[in-house]
Amino acid sequence: MQIVADENIPLLDQFFSEFGDIVRVPGRTMTAADVADADILIVRSVTQVNEQLLAGSKVKFVGTATIGTDHIDLDYLEKAGIGFRSAPGCNAQAVVDYVLSALSVLVDSRGIAFTELSVGIVGLGNVGLLLRNRLEEMDVEVIGVDPFKDPEDVGVLSSFEEALSADVVTFHTPMTKSGDHPTWHMLNAETLAKMKPDACLINAARGAVVDNAALLEHLKANDDFSAILDVWEGEPEINTELLDYCWLGTPHIAGYSLDGKMRGTEMVYHGVCEFFGLPIRCKLAQFLPEPGIKRVNFTEQAPVHQALRTAIRAAYEIRVDDGVLRSAMRRSKNLRETFDRLRKEYPLRRDTPTLRVGVPARAHDLMDALTSAGFDVRTK
Amino acid sequence: MQIVADENIPLLDQFFSEFGDIVRVPGRTMTAADVADADILIVRSVTQVNEQLLAGSKVKFVGTATIGTDHIDLDYLEKAGIGFRSAPGCNAQAVVDYVLSALSVLVDSRGIAFTELSVGIVGLGNVGLLLRNRLEEMDVEVIGVDPFKDPEDVGVLSSFEEALSADVVTFHTPMTKSGDHPTWHMLNAETLAKMKPDACLINAARGAVVDNAALLEHLKANDDFSAILDVWEGEPEINTELLDYCWLGTPHIAGYSLDGKMRGTEMVYHGVCEFFGLPIRCKLAQFLPEPGIKRVNFTEQAPVHQALRTAIRAAYEIRVDDGVLRSAMRRSKNLRETFDRLRKEYPLRRDTPTLRVGVPARAHDLMDALTSAGFDVRTK
Ligand SMILES: NC(=O)c1ccc[n+]([C@@H]2O[C@H](COP(=O)([O-])OP(=O)(O)OC[C@H]3O[C@@H](n4cnc5c(N)ncnc54)[C@H](O)[C@@H]3O)[C@@H](O)[C@H]2O)c1
Ligand SMILES: NC(=O)c1ccc[n+]([C@@H]2O[C@H](COP(=O)([O-])OP(=O)(O)OC[C@H]3O[C@@H](n4cnc5c(N)ncnc54)[C@H](O)[C@@H]3O)[C@@H](O)[C@H]2O)c1
Repeated sequence: MQIVADENIPLLDQFFSEFGDIVRVPGRTMTAADVADADILIVRSVTQVNEQLLAGSKVKFVGTATIGTDHIDLDYLEKAGIGFRSAPGCNAQAVVDYVLSALSVLVDSRGIAFTELSVGIVGLGNVGLLLRNRLEEMDVEVIGVDPFKDPEDVGVLSSFEEALSADVVTFHTPMTKSGDHPTWHMLNAETLAKMKPDACLINAARGAVVDNAALLEHLKANDDFSAILDVWEGEPEINTELLDYCWLGTPHIAGYSLDGKMRGTEMVYHGVCEFFGLPIRCKLAQFLPEPGIKRVNFTEQAPVHQALRTAIRAAYEIRVDDGVLRSAMRRSKNLRETFDRLRKEYPLRRDTPTLRVGVPARAHDLMDALTSAGFDVRTK
Repeated sequence: MQIVADENIPLLDQFFSEFGDIVRVPGRTMTAADVADADILIVRSVTQVNEQLLAGSKVKFVGTATIGTDHIDLDYLEKAGIGFRSAPGCNAQAVVDYVLSALSVLVDSRGIAFTELSVGIVGLGNVGLLLRNRLEEMDVEVIGVDPFKDPEDVGVLSSFEEALSADVVTFHTPMTKSGDHPTWHMLNAETLAKMKPDACLINAARGAVVDNAALLEHLKANDDFSAILDVWEGEPEINTELLDYCWLGTPHIAGYSLDGKMRGTEMVYHGVCEFFGLPIRCKLAQFLPEPGIKRVNFTEQAPVHQALRTAIRAAYEIRVDDGVLRSAMRRSKNLRETFDRLRKEYPLRRDTPTLRVGVPARAHDLMDALTSAGFDVRTK
């Protein structure tokens, strides 16, 4: 079999060489000629996959190593009998790490513990659910909202109104303009007014879920309100005045981890194995490189709260990305180009569970807290 | 021999029980009756040691486990032939940790490396010299100033004027109002105007070295100028408007580490041994408890800059103390009382060298950087 793949997808050899020859092509400029002889096509979001690309080719299966599928004509694939697999949730852990780092900064700046916060989570999909589980295990009060979910599957569901009353409101929905519960400008002047005056908003979903102009007005009028934005209306040309008013701002990188990217390849590999009826021989864990920070050892002397925050920020420090964005924007002559460059050159980070944390076997509270937050906790 | 000591001095038994009986008394209310039968008196800064306290007593030696000696009538001790020892520099490492944490936050917020900073250090005593050594080993450009020092002892000396031109200016002088080079209001409207518009000021020396009213005006007029204050004019009743304008503010705790306190006791112990001609049998290292964070292991994958900042902030995170001060002040009904309480209840931290850092033997850059910053670097 021939496998044609976007050259920027990691671990292609490791996962796919057993199936045949791998041909690497630039994703942005992929043409019908490139894929004509392929049995399997593997893309990222920069390649439009449709009749124009595939008609007349031998392609039997398309995989995209991304959570989104906007670049894929799914109707055409179905009509043409071509197998398909995307990678939903592959980077959910990275986004959860982003939110945990943000919350750790918030509790520190307020001089409180995590358990003193209430967090409204809007959207309980892959990211929202993982975040909810983590926070609930950390004894943080969570107000979860998702009109498309069943409480049987995701636990107690509240209304958007209720979530707005939390200390922190964090968005994890897609951007939708139609249907029963469109998310476009879901947070706007009217709904912002329902939030606590000193609440903290986090948006790491899609920029337009929040009315950015209304948010800017709200921030100007409410000194105690704080906003943490990873996604922006008008990206990559973001409003730098809004950035100035944001407490923390990052260039749409919440989900950018090496583990997430590689998990994307693994999920496509699973799709290929299933579609062609082949056994699953490879596991991602075999291929993951060593993380930069391998282990942090705490003793019984470590106060739980301090250990938790040290570990969370050793895994991911949101303020570094905030600093990089602000200084790059300040010096930028071309905002679009700068924003895109920061994303393209982003030093992929590692997910929380790659950080091994050593604690004494007797330190139960410490062990519980670090395990809840998702670390690989060891007692030896 | 009888040893009378302030009850809040740590490790009294460990260091002094071999010499005789230890009598613990509250330092603030110590009277002549308390010390009448003492051979050795050990105090902190809350006890005034003078003729009134000592006349008629058996006291032959006075030790203070503090760097300052303002509470001691040194002339009287000399006249009375009483031996004396203070603990200069016992907490210098803690103050250096404070400044390094502040600088790590600064470089992150600017998206630059430590090596891109120049740092003016005013005062090259115990703190200033240790800081200078650390920074120079980290390849940071240092502009050092101290009119009372000899370049033979402390390296190149510059003028105050030159130091003011650095990206960061940090003060480590005593507060003096007389002599050739008084430090009172050394940084004032006129000298502030000579600093870079986007410079960062750090004061962890004594509040009145900086004219706080002039600083507030300067901060109001210069958006890009940032101030990090640990010490304040009018402490403990600090100007909360100034705190609002400071980038980071802490309640005079830069030097508050457990290691520093215990080192203070050890230095007095050395003084006692010397004065009475006794052998030095005890070493501080025997008595130091385990630190909360015992070890951080990095791999060759760790970018040097990231490893450095993670280690520095695992040892001490200045923003936590900043958050605690701001939130306590916001809720405070009595600023004096709150400021003093934060100091009294401060959770003593551990010095950087107590943090063991594991790196692969081949990772030379990583090893050098972490060693320069003062960590206990191990290759196994
Ligand atoms: N910033 C980043 O780097 C980054 C990384 C990963 C994901 N994302 C974005 O985060 C969002 C969540 O990602 P995911 O993987 O969890 O997606 P997902 O599809 O698994 O979950 C989205 C959830 O939102 C719910 N939802 C839809 N409309 C809603 C509404 N009106 N109110 C409440 N809930 C609603 C859906 O029912 C679904 O459960 C997506 O928009 C995704 O594109 C961003
Ligand atoms: N914030 C805290 O918790 C904390 C902790 C420790 C020390 N301190 C303070 O920090 C300062 C430095 O402490 P140290 O232990 O290094 O003291 P030190 O006495 O060892 O050093 C002070 C140095 O300042 C120099 N100096 C005096 N006047 C000067 C001037 N006009 N210009 C430049 N240099 C001048 C002296 O020559 C001396 O070398 C002291 O004021 C001390 O009280 C604060």
